[in-house]
Amino acid sequence: MTYCVGMLMKDGFVLAADTRTNAGLDNIATFKKLHSWSQPGKRVFALATSGNLATTQAVVSLLSEGTQSLRKRGAVDNLFTAKTMFQAAQIVGRAIRDVQKTDEGQLFQSEDTFSASFLFAGHTPFLQIGEHKYGKPILDRVSDPGMRLGEAAKLVLLSFDSTIRSNLSVGMPIDLLVYARDTLQLERVRRIERDDPYFQKLSGDWSKALRKAFAAIEEFDI
Amino acid sequence: MTYCVGMLMKDGFVLAADTRTNAGLDNIATFKKLHSWSQPGKRVFALATSGNLATTQAVVSLLSEGTQSLRKRGAVDNLFTAKTMFQAAQIVGRAIRDVQKTDEGQLFQSEDTFSASFLFAGHTPFLQIGEHKYGKPILDRVSDPGMRLGEAAKLVLLSFDSTIRSNLSVGMPIDLLVYARDTLQLERVRRIERDDPYFQKLSGDWSKALRKAFAAIEEFDI
Repeated sequence: MTYCVGMLMKDGFVLAADTRTNAGLDNIATFKKLHSWSQPGKRVFALATSGNLATTQAVVSLLSEGTQSLRKRGAVDNLFTAKTMFQAAQIVGRAIRDVQKTDEGQLFQSEDTFSASFLFAGHTPFLQIGEHKYGKPILDRVSDPGMRLGEAAKLVLLSFDSTIRSNLSVGMPIDLLVYARDTLQLERVRRIERDDPYFQKLSGDWSKALRKAFAAIEEFDI
Repeated sequence: MTYCVGMLMKDGFVLAADTRTNAGLDNIATFKKLHSWSQPGKRVFALATSGNLATTQAVVSLLSEGTQSLRKRGAVDNLFTAKTMFQAAQIVGRAIRDVQKTDEGQLFQSEDTFSASFLFAGHTPFLQIGEHKYGKPILDRVSDPGMRLGEAAKLVLLSFDSTIRSNLSVGMPIDLLVYARDTLQLERVRRIERDDPYFQKLSGDWSKALRKAFAAIEEFDI
């Protein structure tokens, strides 16, 4: 499984993805699920993927090839030529359909095996894909579009901490991307490893704070 | 969907179930999913059910009929004649198989439609069935078998609050059963309605405490 979350803030957006991938419980590996394309000062795109790796990787490759063939004659529309965010989203959609058409019949038709989900930037306060349920309650309670980006990143990491503690199929490291609105630069892309001091402190402090908050609430009168 | 959770404590156990049932998003009703059988001073059983209502209700009815036919000659083993908890669990298992055998062929064979899960007392610190993911992080962080029963009930209700806030398919009222070890009496069975003052305060206090705990944690340095 996978867990990805994107938050759209007044000041920019935060996107994060875990990196665990598995083919059965005894075959667990680390794989990048957070991708980005940028022309510094011009445009920035980020995509988080969940689902079948063959499908998601092919989509990412098609999008990358598209941006590379920008200067070729007759090159099709790509992320760097799209005039609006909606056109960019349509280009991602077309890449998905192209991959599915190519693989049709070659691959098993099970919905489970070949489905894939994509978070492409964001249009709602938050959006999650993958193993999203464990980390939703904290987002539901705390998220707010007026948050500073550092606060939003903290919230996204807390949501990951809850998910990783409760479900083995989502694992560290976490790829985190923070984009400040209108900078048109991708300067804040971080891989957060298991021994990251901030993440460890966050996780420990949060456990302590939750237990304290729990203790402060009146007991149920049985 | 459904959410049920059971906690086994040193001092007894706590079992809770929501009451929402639906046949499509526009056909939502309230239905009891928390059942109990007791002979005061002798034995107490409680069962929380999740899944297809036809199946779970038939199982509950079979178990009830079994306990009613206790005095008949040649009556089969039932919850009130079981000599151990393991025998009682086997009786529940047999009731499930009997229902499945009866309904075989009459009902559609979709796994989704006719699957059912049961929480029968408890043998682990906590066990959940149904829509369990939203409410697991708080249980993972706070639960402890040494808790007082009132604390455990508070924790179970917090876990429900997180689930109900994040998922429409689980809804109030909540049936809550608290059993104090060795009392062999079922005195503490409560239905907690939407306007229950304790639950409203719990939910509000918890939101405030979470937001405060969140604010107290150092921001992510982007």
